[in-house]
Amino acid sequence: MKIVAFRHHNEPGVGLLSADARSVEPFSSLPAAQRGLGALPLVELLARGEPLPPRGASLPLAQLQLTAPLPRPRRNIFCVGKNYHAHAKEFAGSGFDSSAKSGGDIPEHPILFSKVPESVIGPNEPIVVPREISTAIDYEAELAVVIGRGGRGIRSQDAMAHVWGYTIVNDITARDWQSRHQQWLMGKSFDTFCPMGPWLVSADELDGQDTRVRCWVNGQERQNASTRDLIFGIPRLIETLSAGITLYPGDVIATGTPVGVGIGFKPPKYLQPGDVVRVEIDGIGALENPVR
Amino acid sequence: MKIVAFRHHNEPGVGLLSADARSVEPFSSLPAAQRGLGALPLVELLARGEPLPPRGASLPLAQLQLTAPLPRPRRNIFCVGKNYHAHAKEFAGSGFDSSAKSGGDIPEHPILFSKVPESVIGPNEPIVVPREISTAIDYEAELAVVIGRGGRGIRSQDAMAHVWGYTIVNDITARDWQSRHQQWLMGKSFDTFCPMGPWLVSADELDGQDTRVRCWVNGQERQNASTRDLIFGIPRLIETLSAGITLYPGDVIATGTPVGVGIGFKPPKYLQPGDVVRVEIDGIGALENPVR
Repeated sequence: MKIVAFRHHNEPGVGLLSADARSVEPFSSLPAAQRGLGALPLVELLARGEPLPPRGASLPLAQLQLTAPLPRPRRNIFCVGKNYHAHAKEFAGSGFDSSAKSGGDIPEHPILFSKVPESVIGPNEPIVVPREISTAIDYEAELAVVIGRGGRGIRSQDAMAHVWGYTIVNDITARDWQSRHQQWLMGKSFDTFCPMGPWLVSADELDGQDTRVRCWVNGQERQNASTRDLIFGIPRLIETLSAGITLYPGDVIATGTPVGVGIGFKPPKYLQPGDVVRVEIDGIGALENPVR
Repeated sequence: MKIVAFRHHNEPGVGLLSADARSVEPFSSLPAAQRGLGALPLVELLARGEPLPPRGASLPLAQLQLTAPLPRPRRNIFCVGKNYHAHAKEFAGSGFDSSAKSGGDIPEHPILFSKVPESVIGPNEPIVVPREISTAIDYEAELAVVIGRGGRGIRSQDAMAHVWGYTIVNDITARDWQSRHQQWLMGKSFDTFCPMGPWLVSADELDGQDTRVRCWVNGQERQNASTRDLIFGIPRLIETLSAGITLYPGDVIATGTPVGVGIGFKPPKYLQPGDVVRVEIDGIGALENPVR
């Protein structure tokens, strides 16, 4: 199934996308406060093994304003740094990698950091360049895993059973802040820095371990890789993260970005107001955001 | 005022501590879901300039089981690394500082990272050593700032007006994970790794920029410093954090720890099951937790 969160007549809504991707059956009986959390209450229900609530009459997708499928995650989004081989080299060679250890570009252990939940925006919402503090703004197309059943101490061989599904995240980054402040939280968390969408796709519809992630800026292809090339695959990421931290339904893990980010170019190709960034992942769809 | 969150007859409660610190007047009219968030709904009310709800009959403090004043923050807790001069040197010299840049122990810019909200525990709750994955568990006594009125682009000269008050945080850390994974999120976020309390103290009762932070392990003094020695003071931290990230009422900023952590000793003095860690901050009180 594909869960879509949206606004319609200025009210938050959440529903199931039809097979032809043209209409949405809304869960109209959910209270507005829950609908405002998008797919989160539904993923929680399903994680507990409970049925979804009844759905109302179909709405044409074209009449809905899509929001992020998880417009307000319950806690910061987990993200992974330098998790594709070619990107790890690109980043280490960019001069922006304050955490680069001498003697190796490829991390020996997953690098996990976070983005604040309020950085999330939906499809077509603008990524705002905070010109007064940074113009070194970069894109990072990523497959995001959404946790279903939570847990702690999840072993890698059991991890995929904890994946509810997938969405797309664009891990927007202020490179100067990322480097200058050593820990990446701030440079990754500015307002509007986490475009997410267009919807959640359940794990039975997509093999997240073998799909293609692509990114275009103004129609020019910048990134194009398979998740088969992840240094630390989804099972290992879940095992590592859950070793000491209890995971909960609706947790988001952005799995890292492939080679081709803006600082990989000389000179760097930063995002500029007026640009349009489009991320596509096979089996999910496309997430497009203008830059303002 | 001092806001106390607690459990009483197995129900969550929140109230004001009496001047003699012996009783609590509970905000009994708040719905249970709000009381379960501790001081958060009250700080939000006050940030909006609204009055506090009426209080019920006094309860003896001794009959209450204190919880963290913010038992479930709305997003990850902001934390600051290497923010006292002597501790910055101690940490850089410990061999555990994966982010140490060559040529300087004192950071030029604040180092900000986060801890997941679910790592928060209250006074007297056990810090659990996750023996199967780490025994390199360390304490970090810290003054925590709680934001009242939120905002973005807050200038340092205006920042103190955004501080609602203060509490104590013990920023428990798995040193091996902190070092091995480069970004500090995981080593800082294991379950039970954020003791907080004993209550929130409003900013009119305490000068957070001039108070003493002390820590004892099993009665042995380990840390003792004044917040006057912070490298980046509270105004600068709020200015930096809010430059690109909108702050909200109830946001927590743990301001960093003084010299004297376990890895400052040779060999390191890690926390062991059976230990008791006590943090005291003048003007707030004491936060004590056993280690299990």
